[in-house]
Amino acid sequence: MEIKVVHQILEWNEDVSRQVADVLSENKVCMINVMGSPGAGKTSLITTVIRQLSHKYRIGVIEGDIAGQIDAEKMQDMGIPVVQLNTDGACHIEAMSIQNILESFDLANLDVIIVENIGNLVCPAEFNIGEDFRVAILSVPEGDDKVEKYPLMFSETDILVVNKFDMLPYFDFDIQRVFANAIEVNPDVEIFTLSNKTGDGAEAFVEALSARIDEKIK
Amino acid sequence: MEIKVVHQILEWNEDVSRQVADVLSENKVCMINVMGSPGAGKTSLITTVIRQLSHKYRIGVIEGDIAGQIDAEKMQDMGIPVVQLNTDGACHIEAMSIQNILESFDLANLDVIIVENIGNLVCPAEFNIGEDFRVAILSVPEGDDKVEKYPLMFSETDILVVNKFDMLPYFDFDIQRVFANAIEVNPDVEIFTLSNKTGDGAEAFVEALSARIDEKIK
Repeated sequence: MEIKVVHQILEWNEDVSRQVADVLSENKVCMINVMGSPGAGKTSLITTVIRQLSHKYRIGVIEGDIAGQIDAEKMQDMGIPVVQLNTDGACHIEAMSIQNILESFDLANLDVIIVENIGNLVCPAEFNIGEDFRVAILSVPEGDDKVEKYPLMFSETDILVVNKFDMLPYFDFDIQRVFANAIEVNPDVEIFTLSNKTGDGAEAFVEALSARIDEKIK
Repeated sequence: MEIKVVHQILEWNEDVSRQVADVLSENKVCMINVMGSPGAGKTSLITTVIRQLSHKYRIGVIEGDIAGQIDAEKMQDMGIPVVQLNTDGACHIEAMSIQNILESFDLANLDVIIVENIGNLVCPAEFNIGEDFRVAILSVPEGDDKVEKYPLMFSETDILVVNKFDMLPYFDFDIQRVFANAIEVNPDVEIFTLSNKTGDGAEAFVEALSARIDEKIK
């Protein structure tokens, strides 16, 4: 019973995600879907990207949260157009929500929309939202077994960021295991290790992001 | 559309969770539902409990995972009866799965079943599985804003464990904020800070757990 229902929702979601992708393409806007566990560092990574790329691109943000608007306020403080999407309990963002929200942005004057998905390694990976590419974040304190345990998230992402890399000395975390597992489920994935706290590794990630954005909007 | 469907599943789940609770009560078995983000330390906390309480209670474990059996193997190595529940993509455990699995245990010769739920701060909180009480784990590296962002998980739990407390010096984590937020959404919650790595704080938590188990099975 449950499987059939999810299937119906997913089909509907696929249709709408294609419509969202079309609207974005017409307006030459690149959409990035950022996913990861609660506390993996999604918001910090997005603020890093805004700081380093807002001279180059006009960036907007959609902040997905079950409840509240803590992160959206951080973005607004940076002078970025932001919409808070509260899912009121739902564990992922669907394309239908993005479609409704797009009207709130002046798409003709935007290059990039970054979507911060709900903190969750499971459900968000099942739902395309019309994005051009996905960034999945795994942080060192979460452990090196997460690619094996949550394979869909890591097989469906375009970029994998291993975050809080400055914490490596304090945790029993085998980065080679993560590399091997990620490449096994996803041979084309681009992987970056970085620390948002120290800034180490951020430059290479931001450059790769920029190259992907250029591909879409130029 | 989606809301109606979830509602139906939840009603069905409530019926079955009551049946599970009845079977457990008849057999004087206490069931504990352990929840938290990926990497919060659910498995480590459960192994700590087994180590400290297996002289006192006959303990079994149900290991919930999207895929794989990494954690179940750890439990089996400890000589504990364990069943691996693979949800094949689903983000939470439902009562129906527990009902099926109970047949695999010799309930007359068990005192406690510990269920390790899927690593997820959202969906598992919506589904009663017939448990006597819930333990939610939040780890320091996840950040001190998680109670505000994922209120259902923390308002529905009986015990909140703030784990990886030895990492406090390395993260910008305000424990008073977590206490205040947790008590605001859940005035009756019992809160423990502990480190599975150093063992600090584990004793008080295990004692509280033991008191709750005794209440059920004595």
